[in-house]
Amino acid sequence: MWKFPKDFLFGYSWSGFQFEMGLEGSEVPNSDWWVWVHDTENIFSGLVSGHLPENGPAYWHLYKQDHDIAEGLGMEAIRGGIEWARLFPKPTFDVKVDIEKDEDGNIVAVDVPERAIEEMEKLADMKALEHYREIYSDWKGRGKVFILNLYHWPLPLWLHDPIAVRRLGPDRAPSGWLDERSVVEFVKFAAFVAYHLNDLVDMWSTMNEPNVVYEQGYTRPNSGFPPGYLSFESSTKAARNMAQAHARAYDVIKEHSKAPVGLIYSFVWHDALNEEAEDIVKEIRKRHYEFVTAVHSGSSGLLGERPDMKGKLDWIGVNYYTRVAYRMNNGSIEVPPGYGYMCERGGFAKSGRPASDFGWEIYPEGLENILRDLHRIYGLPMMITENGIADAADRYRPYYLVSHLKAVHSAMEAGADVRGYLHWSLTDNYEWAQGFRMRFGLVHVDFETKKRYLRPSALAFREIATRKEIPEELSHLADLTPLMRD
Amino acid sequence: MWKFPKDFLFGYSWSGFQFEMGLEGSEVPNSDWWVWVHDTENIFSGLVSGHLPENGPAYWHLYKQDHDIAEGLGMEAIRGGIEWARLFPKPTFDVKVDIEKDEDGNIVAVDVPERAIEEMEKLADMKALEHYREIYSDWKGRGKVFILNLYHWPLPLWLHDPIAVRRLGPDRAPSGWLDERSVVEFVKFAAFVAYHLNDLVDMWSTMNEPNVVYEQGYTRPNSGFPPGYLSFESSTKAARNMAQAHARAYDVIKEHSKAPVGLIYSFVWHDALNEEAEDIVKEIRKRHYEFVTAVHSGSSGLLGERPDMKGKLDWIGVNYYTRVAYRMNNGSIEVPPGYGYMCERGGFAKSGRPASDFGWEIYPEGLENILRDLHRIYGLPMMITENGIADAADRYRPYYLVSHLKAVHSAMEAGADVRGYLHWSLTDNYEWAQGFRMRFGLVHVDFETKKRYLRPSALAFREIATRKEIPEELSHLADLTPLMRD
Amino acid sequence: MWKFPKDFLFGYSWSGFQFEMGLEGSEVPNSDWWVWVHDTENIFSGLVSGHLPENGPAYWHLYKQDHDIAEGLGMEAIRGGIEWARLFPKPTFDVKVDIEKDEDGNIVAVDVPERAIEEMEKLADMKALEHYREIYSDWKGRGKVFILNLYHWPLPLWLHDPIAVRRLGPDRAPSGWLDERSVVEFVKFAAFVAYHLNDLVDMWSTMNEPNVVYEQGYTRPNSGFPPGYLSFESSTKAARNMAQAHARAYDVIKEHSKAPVGLIYSFVWHDALNEEAEDIVKEIRKRHYEFVTAVHSGSSGLLGERPDMKGKLDWIGVNYYTRVAYRMNNGSIEVPPGYGYMCERGGFAKSGRPASDFGWEIYPEGLENILRDLHRIYGLPMMITENGIADAADRYRPYYLVSHLKAVHSAMEAGADVRGYLHWSLTDNYEWAQGFRMRFGLVHVDFETKKRYLRPSALAFREIATRKEIPEELSHLADLTPLMRD
Amino acid sequence: MWKFPKDFLFGYSWSGFQFEMGLEGSEVPNSDWWVWVHDTENIFSGLVSGHLPENGPAYWHLYKQDHDIAEGLGMEAIRGGIEWARLFPKPTFDVKVDIEKDEDGNIVAVDVPERAIEEMEKLADMKALEHYREIYSDWKGRGKVFILNLYHWPLPLWLHDPIAVRRLGPDRAPSGWLDERSVVEFVKFAAFVAYHLNDLVDMWSTMNEPNVVYEQGYTRPNSGFPPGYLSFESSTKAARNMAQAHARAYDVIKEHSKAPVGLIYSFVWHDALNEEAEDIVKEIRKRHYEFVTAVHSGSSGLLGERPDMKGKLDWIGVNYYTRVAYRMNNGSIEVPPGYGYMCERGGFAKSGRPASDFGWEIYPEGLENILRDLHRIYGLPMMITENGIADAADRYRPYYLVSHLKAVHSAMEAGADVRGYLHWSLTDNYEWAQGFRMRFGLVHVDFETKKRYLRPSALAFREIATRKEIPEELSHLADLTPLMRD
Repeated sequence: MWKFPKDFLFGYSWSGFQFEMGLEGSEVPNSDWWVWVHDTENIFSGLVSGHLPENGPAYWHLYKQDHDIAEGLGMEAIRGGIEWARLFPKPTFDVKVDIEKDEDGNIVAVDVPERAIEEMEKLADMKALEHYREIYSDWKGRGKVFILNLYHWPLPLWLHDPIAVRRLGPDRAPSGWLDERSVVEFVKFAAFVAYHLNDLVDMWSTMNEPNVVYEQGYTRPNSGFPPGYLSFESSTKAARNMAQAHARAYDVIKEHSKAPVGLIYSFVWHDALNEEAEDIVKEIRKRHYEFVTAVHSGSSGLLGERPDMKGKLDWIGVNYYTRVAYRMNNGSIEVPPGYGYMCERGGFAKSGRPASDFGWEIYPEGLENILRDLHRIYGLPMMITENGIADAADRYRPYYLVSHLKAVHSAMEAGADVRGYLHWSLTDNYEWAQGFRMRFGLVHVDFETKKRYLRPSALAFREIATRKEIPEELSHLADLTPLMRD
Repeated sequence: MWKFPKDFLFGYSWSGFQFEMGLEGSEVPNSDWWVWVHDTENIFSGLVSGHLPENGPAYWHLYKQDHDIAEGLGMEAIRGGIEWARLFPKPTFDVKVDIEKDEDGNIVAVDVPERAIEEMEKLADMKALEHYREIYSDWKGRGKVFILNLYHWPLPLWLHDPIAVRRLGPDRAPSGWLDERSVVEFVKFAAFVAYHLNDLVDMWSTMNEPNVVYEQGYTRPNSGFPPGYLSFESSTKAARNMAQAHARAYDVIKEHSKAPVGLIYSFVWHDALNEEAEDIVKEIRKRHYEFVTAVHSGSSGLLGERPDMKGKLDWIGVNYYTRVAYRMNNGSIEVPPGYGYMCERGGFAKSGRPASDFGWEIYPEGLENILRDLHRIYGLPMMITENGIADAADRYRPYYLVSHLKAVHSAMEAGADVRGYLHWSLTDNYEWAQGFRMRFGLVHVDFETKKRYLRPSALAFREIATRKEIPEELSHLADLTPLMRD
Repeated sequence: MWKFPKDFLFGYSWSGFQFEMGLEGSEVPNSDWWVWVHDTENIFSGLVSGHLPENGPAYWHLYKQDHDIAEGLGMEAIRGGIEWARLFPKPTFDVKVDIEKDEDGNIVAVDVPERAIEEMEKLADMKALEHYREIYSDWKGRGKVFILNLYHWPLPLWLHDPIAVRRLGPDRAPSGWLDERSVVEFVKFAAFVAYHLNDLVDMWSTMNEPNVVYEQGYTRPNSGFPPGYLSFESSTKAARNMAQAHARAYDVIKEHSKAPVGLIYSFVWHDALNEEAEDIVKEIRKRHYEFVTAVHSGSSGLLGERPDMKGKLDWIGVNYYTRVAYRMNNGSIEVPPGYGYMCERGGFAKSGRPASDFGWEIYPEGLENILRDLHRIYGLPMMITENGIADAADRYRPYYLVSHLKAVHSAMEAGADVRGYLHWSLTDNYEWAQGFRMRFGLVHVDFETKKRYLRPSALAFREIATRKEIPEELSHLADLTPLMRD
Repeated sequence: MWKFPKDFLFGYSWSGFQFEMGLEGSEVPNSDWWVWVHDTENIFSGLVSGHLPENGPAYWHLYKQDHDIAEGLGMEAIRGGIEWARLFPKPTFDVKVDIEKDEDGNIVAVDVPERAIEEMEKLADMKALEHYREIYSDWKGRGKVFILNLYHWPLPLWLHDPIAVRRLGPDRAPSGWLDERSVVEFVKFAAFVAYHLNDLVDMWSTMNEPNVVYEQGYTRPNSGFPPGYLSFESSTKAARNMAQAHARAYDVIKEHSKAPVGLIYSFVWHDALNEEAEDIVKEIRKRHYEFVTAVHSGSSGLLGERPDMKGKLDWIGVNYYTRVAYRMNNGSIEVPPGYGYMCERGGFAKSGRPASDFGWEIYPEGLENILRDLHRIYGLPMMITENGIADAADRYRPYYLVSHLKAVHSAMEAGADVRGYLHWSLTDNYEWAQGFRMRFGLVHVDFETKKRYLRPSALAFREIATRKEIPEELSHLADLTPLMRD
């Protein structure tokens, strides 16, 4: 019915912090996220769940089993991660590298010579590096595709201490992406990984959803994301540093690898609920894409003219969950509750569509719209690097899966160059401030026993992935009508 | 995990009125149910849906396709039907048979000689008979098991005209099972079918859910079942006639067939919500089983001592959907809303369990309890002949399926002799007074195009049926916790 | 703010069956409604509540107390009832009267001479008559207005036995308004009451909501109204007899009384949800008024040309609760759930307005529309004879009260000649098939102790009734916005 | 029925920030709360409503009208406020006063001589002082009781700048109650007010709900209260300073006034949902009362042994809204959602009780329990100084009012010395971070026009206050059953 190309990749994505821990010996206690979710004040105030990542799905130990399941479901590609804080429990500040700045003080080049990498080896946990190699090799050894993403949110504590920031202010404690030094240290880390693991990587991504980090962290104190205070100025500063970090990491990876280097971004479909809102929403969309534009064209609202950042993007990783809906109301723009991310948990959006356990509206149209937009603006190869639903009971996931795959298919028919679909995720995992409440797996995990169980949607995934099509007999799942409340 | 015996039969059930019609040439307009659901007054008053059976899934024409799907899902057995009104559009009253009565006027024997069957052939639609033969043969030709149930609710209009009954009273219009003649005509019909189709039938059932017919029809005017008036006396009279009809049909089938002859009954788990209710509920359960007891032991509250009816049951067909829950409240027994059949449609039972689109609580414990009861009381072989859920969006069906199969498994471990599990049903169909609103299929039917689509639960069914077990990796679906509202 | 004329009457309405019983000695066991709500089959099937009218508010004994409360709340008028079956436990068939019929067999005149009334006295329960006189006199003695309505649903069992009708069909049991004799007996009853109680009555009404009797009784088997079977033909027949009964009762009352004689009707606002539905809905409205038209102009769709029925209406009693909403959907008209009478109990209508405990949408616009319609068509004086809400917790009643009074005020400003507003009702009472579940009182009744308690809305009623206006400081209650769900 | 003593005071409470503003000339822009609710980042992030206090009910201008209404409703007492930042737009640091400290650095005495008060007059807005005198005099002139509370949350910006705190950390910006100087400045302010307004005040309160200030401000970043960051240590520090500020303010007020000086506290009923939780909950309750204990006995867990703080409490102001419910779950204590403050807005608590527009369970038992506890522990006179419900539609307020008054009555019968009941509040007002969404008034305010309208509960209040009893005919409102969901 809706056929995908033979080389279209089905698979899933995972990240270090959310998946690795669960059995003894897998903990990484020296990251900002670790201290954040263990902080008593955060837990008592309800900012974070009180669930702990060390009780997670234990991929660090059970990766073979998960790869077996993935293979059994017809998966051919994995996007995985690597924990910076695991590899570098100690600061790398003292490893010298050459930094070139322009007259405005921007970092336009960082050179990480082999000598620096050697110095880093002394600071690194080389056994951890070896274990990552084993994990990736197990997957590659099955003849599969592996995509490595370098940064998926936790920063080493020596770069970011959000509890100290809260007590002393951001200028008297390690302030993470507000500190320009994070750019340089990230480039070193990227060079180190590229140097050591290059042989196993088919595609690189520098970072996952930088926009979530600088938005939730500095403009949404309710989100439970570190450092959790309000400052639009800080948010912009972090964004700028992350964009530079991407560009310079791109440069150093390219020195060691011929594989394409991309960026994974959290794309949200900004939607207008009434006509009056459309002009403003167009503007909002443009701003939403500015981080990507900055590293693609080197000219953006975020960073101005930066010829040194032009062309630093070989592919785009598209993470998509739902929309944000705007409405003009008496001349002012508003984001009314009941749409997108702002629905009742397990209830219904005002559009009649069901909302996930997380309260997120199921809105596949948004994914198609974004892929069309991105294709029009950037014309780059794309990969769906996250798409999924918190749905412990699997009530909606089969529909979510098929309707979003159909959206991908439609965008491809319209020309979008989408190379694969990586579901978020194979198994349940640790959902940041929400802990284990939100279950995004095709596979249910019993966190007590670490046992894995297939949800029915996993069977549907298998049908689709093994046949590289949405078969006729499952195509009705693209239609959300039976789920909707009128 | 939970293994079933190698010869345990997975399959599905269908009935004539609900499945056959849908494409031109399949209509059977001369039955009580046909006129009932077409009656303008019934439709305008909302008693029936206004949906029409002639727009159904069209099994009469598309049986090969459905058999293909069933086979693909690992099914080995079908319980099918045959429409009395289709076979005999004209009365068979005039065909003479010998009837023997006891001193109380009970029908203790009916003899249908071959001569009578020959006379009936002249009244029958022999082309329809031939088409049934083709349908059954297609399935049997695949090396499968076929179970034929003779009566699944519609009566020929010449035996029952519910609209006329409403206007004139039951004693001045054809009154169906209130009329003793229905017993005799049913026996003729049974003999005729057994004579002609015996070679294709592995197991016989005389009738499906007689209790629903005499309960809904005469004690639940809101149910939308004909004739739809209130009379507990009539209900009992109909019950008695149906029990006699079963026993005498058993006799005549046995003359033509060595296959076991059983009865399919709608078993409800009568449940006590508080301890004070338990004694009464035990009594209610006993009464619930009395129809079965009547034809098994020949001694029952329903019919008294009837040695002629003893041993007329080789197997029991168990249809199960949910429970009925009782509570003692200030000394009087009540059936509080919010449990069993009396939940909000698509909402939640007061027990926290979800309710189906029909408002029926998911209550697998009831099935296990019933199988244990039946085993203890009758010790007969049993077959699950209906079990399923109205769930258009397939939100709960995977759980319904697995949790009820687990209940079957538990009962078997405790000794119950269950031979198979026939799901209700393979495809969506015409749900009596509810029309097409209630969708019971593993397979979604687009009633416009008659196209079939697999629901995710069909994939789960396939895993289980082909492996003859609830595999470990699906066993979590037996646990309803993720569905429940606390 | 919204002032009412000085002679505008505030008050309440009551009926015999729903209010009188409650303490020993007040039972009237020989009516159709009495046997109907006591019938075991009706109760067990859930058609009726199982609550019993003999446990009611006991107005028969406690009328003085209720009159005190009414007076304390500023009420000046009561519309009361008189139970036919109480007055005439035995048939009055044998009392001869002169009946004149036209060539079509229509009853065009009934003469009830004084001699007949004397004969009736021998059949009547004259002590009951005396007690009614005491009740009415207590109210009149306070200098108040009394309106007497003769028929409010229960028929003497000798005229209507709905259980027998169910068993034998309507032509072999006393069939109530299907039997032309009911017309004549009703006229006798009317003449008898007018003769005896004329001195206490300021305004007469022949019957309350005849349309509910012939619609619910014969076209809504789910309503729990006797006789509860489906026959549109019977419905029309009953309607015709009731219209004739009204006209002939009008004639005989006029012989004894100079007070105006009217009819109380259940007016529903038939509403079009989309433009396509408007033409049909206009037609429906016209039909809805036909009963009234029949006795006003003598020319109607219901009864054709009947000059003998022209001008038999001095005033119109308007009972209003909510709307019925229609929608055209793919060329067919439908009454979608979620509006008017078809909302979830205690939930919200799809319009966002709250629904009562009964599931009835709060829709005051409908009352204004109806009053305007009636004024335009008939130009007669009107009285709101019922308006109220089942709302045990009094969550919505203050709004219901004020918004509907404002609707009355608006209609009056547009010319409608409305003489008063009688709330349904002062106290909680027996709501027919629903029993005591539905609480319509400004005053809460503890049915155990028969004690009365004021709901907050009673205090608002007092403010309005004593000041003959909706005072500025309560006027915000006319705006339902704070109640609505968006 | 439930009678209150003749001298029991009915009335209401108001505070400056929430009520005064609304018409031109009433703004107080130099307080922490003013900048907090106007801060763009706070508004965009959703921490505060975006509603602005300058659009409030305008009591500063309309006090006469509100006093008229209050008098009309039978009120005899008002608890009012005075805005520190309005009186002292400029710092008072430079006004010298004598401070005595003990060896631990605690402030054990502050002397504010008349000379200091004269100096303060030069810094004060003496016209504002005069206007407060007019407001209070208008009420006193009616022969009523006036209670003045000095501090109701906003601090002058020169003492607390929460936005600067966020940017720079609490040690580099005016940090409010974390700064010991706040203690001293508050004492000056108290002395100044007592000196000038003493003649109008019948009872004093130093501060309103200090516990809400130090809990929400430092341990609930989601609450939208300044400064909105997490630090249990800061919370304790603020608590200690506030307790000292109370004690020293007590001292200086006593120099100018013979009226009793008390403290208004936010009392929450800490409730155990299961038996296992009871021991811990007792401990929690003890801690909850420690602030009060500190200023009553001078010996407390909060401040240790402080003889200088003993006996600094003449009466206790009890603010009560709902409970907090605890449950032991697998050995750890939890506060499950669905009880107390943690219910769905406008929904139902898990106990079946309705929740207010704010999501607060209606739980009158808690008030009785607290009054009994306080009586047992302190034996002081008490006044209910806040009790009310956010209920725009007045669906529950009549029940809330009567059930809580009954709780007060029961506690009094058990010995508690409660002197009056001040409802929160007469009119709708500005509910802090929630803005105008939460409507707590007996009187609805149209914030556009500033018009006042009575809610039905105001009529019930009038009945009770004028009769000094819950009259029999309203006593059923103490029973929440009709509101509850089963």
